[in-house]
Amino acid sequence: MRLPNYIQDLTTWRSEFKFSTTVEIRFSETDMFGHMNNVSPFIYFEEARIKFFDQLNLFGHLAEAQSKVPVVGDLQCDYIRQIFFGDQISIYVKAAEVGNSSIDIHYMAINQNNELCLTGRGTVVQINPKTGKSVPFDDHQRKQLNSLRESVNK
Amino acid sequence: MRLPNYIQDLTTWRSEFKFSTTVEIRFSETDMFGHMNNVSPFIYFEEARIKFFDQLNLFGHLAEAQSKVPVVGDLQCDYIRQIFFGDQISIYVKAAEVGNSSIDIHYMAINQNNELCLTGRGTVVQINPKTGKSVPFDDHQRKQLNSLRESVNK
Amino acid sequence: MRLPNYIQDLTTWRSEFKFSTTVEIRFSETDMFGHMNNVSPFIYFEEARIKFFDQLNLFGHLAEAQSKVPVVGDLQCDYIRQIFFGDQISIYVKAAEVGNSSIDIHYMAINQNNELCLTGRGTVVQINPKTGKSVPFDDHQRKQLNSLRESVNK
Amino acid sequence: MRLPNYIQDLTTWRSEFKFSTTVEIRFSETDMFGHMNNVSPFIYFEEARIKFFDQLNLFGHLAEAQSKVPVVGDLQCDYIRQIFFGDQISIYVKAAEVGNSSIDIHYMAINQNNELCLTGRGTVVQINPKTGKSVPFDDHQRKQLNSLRESVNK
Repeated sequence: MRLPNYIQDLTTWRSEFKFSTTVEIRFSETDMFGHMNNVSPFIYFEEARIKFFDQLNLFGHLAEAQSKVPVVGDLQCDYIRQIFFGDQISIYVKAAEVGNSSIDIHYMAINQNNELCLTGRGTVVQINPKTGKSVPFDDHQRKQLNSLRESVNK
Repeated sequence: MRLPNYIQDLTTWRSEFKFSTTVEIRFSETDMFGHMNNVSPFIYFEEARIKFFDQLNLFGHLAEAQSKVPVVGDLQCDYIRQIFFGDQISIYVKAAEVGNSSIDIHYMAINQNNELCLTGRGTVVQINPKTGKSVPFDDHQRKQLNSLRESVNK
Repeated sequence: MRLPNYIQDLTTWRSEFKFSTTVEIRFSETDMFGHMNNVSPFIYFEEARIKFFDQLNLFGHLAEAQSKVPVVGDLQCDYIRQIFFGDQISIYVKAAEVGNSSIDIHYMAINQNNELCLTGRGTVVQINPKTGKSVPFDDHQRKQLNSLRESVNK
Repeated sequence: MRLPNYIQDLTTWRSEFKFSTTVEIRFSETDMFGHMNNVSPFIYFEEARIKFFDQLNLFGHLAEAQSKVPVVGDLQCDYIRQIFFGDQISIYVKAAEVGNSSIDIHYMAINQNNELCLTGRGTVVQINPKTGKSVPFDDHQRKQLNSLRESVNK
C-alpha cells in the first residue's frame, strides 16, 4: 500500500487518533456495483468532524453561530478497501495541525473487522460569515485544541 | 489565493480543460447556512467524470462492464468560492496524467459569472472487479486517451 | 394500471399540468440494481416545486423568508415505470386544490420517450416559522394562485 | 391532529408495531432552516424496511436475489412534528396487509422524547426482475408473514 503524502508512518499516524464515532452505511449510499458510493466518505467525515468539534465544545452550537463559523477549505479521501452495505464503520478524527485560524483535520475509517478502509484529511478554517475573512481562535478554543495535543503526546 | 499542490500555474491549468458539463445545485444539496454542502462537489465531479468517460467511450456502458471497471483511488477538492442554491455550475474535467492502468483526473467548477469555485483531482484505476487487481488500458483506451492529450497540446 | 386515489381520470389529470422542469438522474441516485433509488422522486418533486413557486413568485426568496414559510404537510409518490441512470425526466407540477393556508400540489414525471414514470401529490402549508401556526395566503398569493386556475380552465 | 386515511385509530395503530430500528439525522440531511429535509424520511423508511425484511428473512440476501426482488409500488409520508439535526429517531415498521404478491408496509417515526414525528405507508411488490411481473409469495414467505400477524394479534 502506497501511503498518501499526509501520512508519514502508518502505525504512528493510526495511534494518534483518540476520537471515533460509528456510522452505518445506508442502502441509498450504495451504488449499482453493490458497494459504497465514492461520495459517502465525505458525508461520514462530516458527521464525525461535527461530533469531534462538539465534544471539544469548539464552535458552540452551530445553529446559533453568528460571528464565527467553521468552513471547509479542502477535503481529500484515499480509498484503501471497499466498504459494503451493512458494514459498521468507525470514523476516527484528529487535529493533525493547529494554525492561527485553521486546523488540519485527519480522518480514518475502520470496518467491523478492524481493517483500514479510508484515510483522509482536510483543512477547517474559522471565518466571520459576514465578511468571509478568517478569525483567529480565541483562548478557550486554543486551550481545547492544546489539551488535545497533550493527550496525544502522553 | 494559495494554489493546491496539483496546480503549478493556474492560467495554464485552466486552459487545458476541453470538456465540461453543467450541473444545477439542488435544494437538498444546500445546508442550514444557505450554501452548498461540502459533500456535493464530489457528486458533481462524479457526474462530470462519467460523462467525460462516455464521450471518450473509455469504459463502455457501465452497467454491462464485467471484466474491467473504473474505480476511484482517491479524491480531493479545494473550496475556492462559495456556491449557492440556484447557481449554474460548469464542471470541467481533464486527464492530467495517464498511467499504465490509472488516470489522474483533474476537475474545475466555474459559476455563471465565470468565477472559479472549486478545483479538484483524483485517481481512477481500471480493475478487474472479480480479482480487485489493476488491468492495463488496452489499445482502444490508450488511443482515446492519447487523442485527448494531442488536442490539449495543440 | 390502477390509478392512485388522487387521480380520477388520467387524461384529464395529465392535461391540467402547465408547468414543468427537467431533471437529470445522477449516478449517485441509482442503486445496485441499476435503476433510480426510491428516494429520488422526492428530491425531484422538491426541485420542481421550488421552481414552480418561484415562477409564481409565491413565497419570495426562500433564504429571506421570515414571517411565513411553506412547509410540507405530506408527500406521496406512485412508481409507474422504472427510471434509469441517464434518463431525461420532465417533472410537471400543478396546484390541484388551494385552501386558506395550504395547497394540494400534484406531480407527474415523464421520461424522454413521453412515458409516464411517476405520479405524486402532497400538501404544502404556509406557516409562521416562529409559532409553527398556519398563516392564510395574502391577496398577492391568492391572486397568483387564482391566475393559475384560470389558465387551467381555459 | 387530522389522521391520514391509512390510520383508523392512532392508539391501536401505534400498538401494532413490533419492529423498530434507530437512525441518526445526518448534518447533510438537514436544510437551510436547520431541520430535516423533506426527502430524508424516505431514506429512513428504506433503511428500516430492509432491516425488517432481513429479520424476517423474507427476500434472502438482496445482492444475490435473481428471480424475485421486492420493489416499491408507492410511498407516502405525513410530517407530524419537526425533526432536527442530532435527534435520535426510532423508525417502526409493520406489515399492515399481506396480499398475494404484495405487502402494505406502515411506518412510524418517534423521537427521543417519545413524540410521534412521522407516519407513513407504502406497497412493496415481489416481482421477477427480468419480466417485471409480480411473483406470488412462496410458502416460506407466507409463513414468515403469518407469524408476524399472529404476534400482533396476541
